Amino acid sequence: MRTIEHHDVTVRVRYAETDQMGVVYHANYLVWFEVGRVELMRALGAEYKQMEVEDDCRIVVTEAHCRYLYPAKYDEVLRIRAHVAESKNRLIRFSYEVFRDSDAQLLATGGTTHIICGSNGRPKLLPEKYRAIFGALEAHDHKRSKA
Amino acid sequence: MRTIEHHDVTVRVRYAETDQMGVVYHANYLVWFEVGRVELMRALGAEYKQMEVEDDCRIVVTEAHCRYLYPAKYDEVLRIRAHVAESKNRLIRFSYEVFRDSDAQLLATGGTTHIICGSNGRPKLLPEKYRAIFGALEAHDHKRSKA
Amino acid sequence: MRTIEHHDVTVRVRYAETDQMGVVYHANYLVWFEVGRVELMRALGAEYKQMEVEDDCRIVVTEAHCRYLYPAKYDEVLRIRAHVAESKNRLIRFSYEVFRDSDAQLLATGGTTHIICGSNGRPKLLPEKYRAIFGALEAHDHKRSKA
Amino acid sequence: MRTIEHHDVTVRVRYAETDQMGVVYHANYLVWFEVGRVELMRALGAEYKQMEVEDDCRIVVTEAHCRYLYPAKYDEVLRIRAHVAESKNRLIRFSYEVFRDSDAQLLATGGTTHIICGSNGRPKLLPEKYRAIFGALEAHDHKRSKA
Repeated sequence: MRTIEHHDVTVRVRYAETDQMGVVYHANYLVWFEVGRVELMRALGAEYKQMEVEDDCRIVVTEAHCRYLYPAKYDEVLRIRAHVAESKNRLIRFSYEVFRDSDAQLLATGGTTHIICGSNGRPKLLPEKYRAIFGALEAHDHKRSKA
Repeated sequence: MRTIEHHDVTVRVRYAETDQMGVVYHANYLVWFEVGRVELMRALGAEYKQMEVEDDCRIVVTEAHCRYLYPAKYDEVLRIRAHVAESKNRLIRFSYEVFRDSDAQLLATGGTTHIICGSNGRPKLLPEKYRAIFGALEAHDHKRSKA
Repeated sequence: MRTIEHHDVTVRVRYAETDQMGVVYHANYLVWFEVGRVELMRALGAEYKQMEVEDDCRIVVTEAHCRYLYPAKYDEVLRIRAHVAESKNRLIRFSYEVFRDSDAQLLATGGTTHIICGSNGRPKLLPEKYRAIFGALEAHDHKRSKA
Repeated sequence: MRTIEHHDVTVRVRYAETDQMGVVYHANYLVWFEVGRVELMRALGAEYKQMEVEDDCRIVVTEAHCRYLYPAKYDEVLRIRAHVAESKNRLIRFSYEVFRDSDAQLLATGGTTHIICGSNGRPKLLPEKYRAIFGALEAHDHKRSKA
């Protein structure tokens, strides 16, 4: 059983992502959450591209939120940390933290909720092989949070 | 005293805003919320560009969330409805609804929380003239919600 | 025969489109070109959404260029003017001008070249009905440029 | 004298960068060019963030173009190669190639032209220290192309 509790990936802030306040425009954090989520899944053995193509599983966002604590700035290297917060047959929740890599300052936290849909747009069950991956992880987190 | 309860603005979905699921990428809703918020403020007599330039007031996002009910699709005209949900001396909350304009189908709801900062990045009080504008509006909403 | 020589559409600059130089990030002009092109096509009777769905015609970008003369700024209303520069059986060229609407200052010019592909990704001929629309327009422009 | 002829950096295609054709939306290549340009400059010893802050030098885009040969797709790792194509006292040109990293397939080529401006928006001379860096590089390329 896998015991990855979270996965980190770094991104460097692009000029395109800044706005005229001189900091990152807030919507871009949702894009970084996507990067974090996809790399967490890859680390767990679930390549999202394959899920779409081979298993007709699209992980559709039904809710997203973000709290902004300190602004991310141009050219900074950020560490995006993603966790599986909850995993059920039809629903997955991820949570995220965004750190400035140079000093580990926490810049933002957030979460996204997803349902599984086929290419026809209809909700479906997460295939067994993915449930084993995410469920194991979530169970692990659950036990940890009780401790 | 103004009694605008909300303000609507329409946008047409751009190809750039879609993703390979054939629907709008979820982070773009936060951009539309920005469009809705700015047009609500303009309708209330508070032009955001002026706030930055003349009053050294930046409305900084500290929290954003969105619930996605139905996907927005390419070339659809959307109606972005923005409200002042709460207005205090140092904090403003807006709430939003995104409708498909053709049939008034509600596609998404959300909210953002903001503090006021100067160009030095320090929090400051919302100037009196804006408090009058937003506060009147918020009070109005409050009474309405009690009714 | 249609004789529309160009079509104008206005957009208002979003905060999301600015960068920390305090002006619009240059890649966004290509998005506005898309807006201009699609509205020109709509004005000519060729709705791009329909072309994809009903005629299996995707207008794929093979080249894009832009010259930036004056910066576009936050909250400005811009006028995007699009022309059909050339129309052949397998290729369409559009050209664009971006004006600041308040004083008609020209901010940028550019162009895009497109081929027609089916959903299988293979190049194909532009269907006759669209050739009539674009070709008529292009011929018209051609005669005008000789005058 | 430095003799770096080009610099490579890799990016992984984000879902946010795709569109409903199932490929990357074309404007995003300009963002990748920015990433390539900034990393080339960093490799040469010219950190762009420092140029803005310490030397009041903004490298403003005056022209950009891109030719699209093969589509980039979701989750692909791309290799962005940037060159200094020309360097003068007031102007720098960069050129770019975008390769699919897995098989070195060339996907796109392009270029950007830049002038140097102060934070007041006025053109200025590129400071001597940067001219040495870029000029050396450009001269090198020039000799090479004659060989």
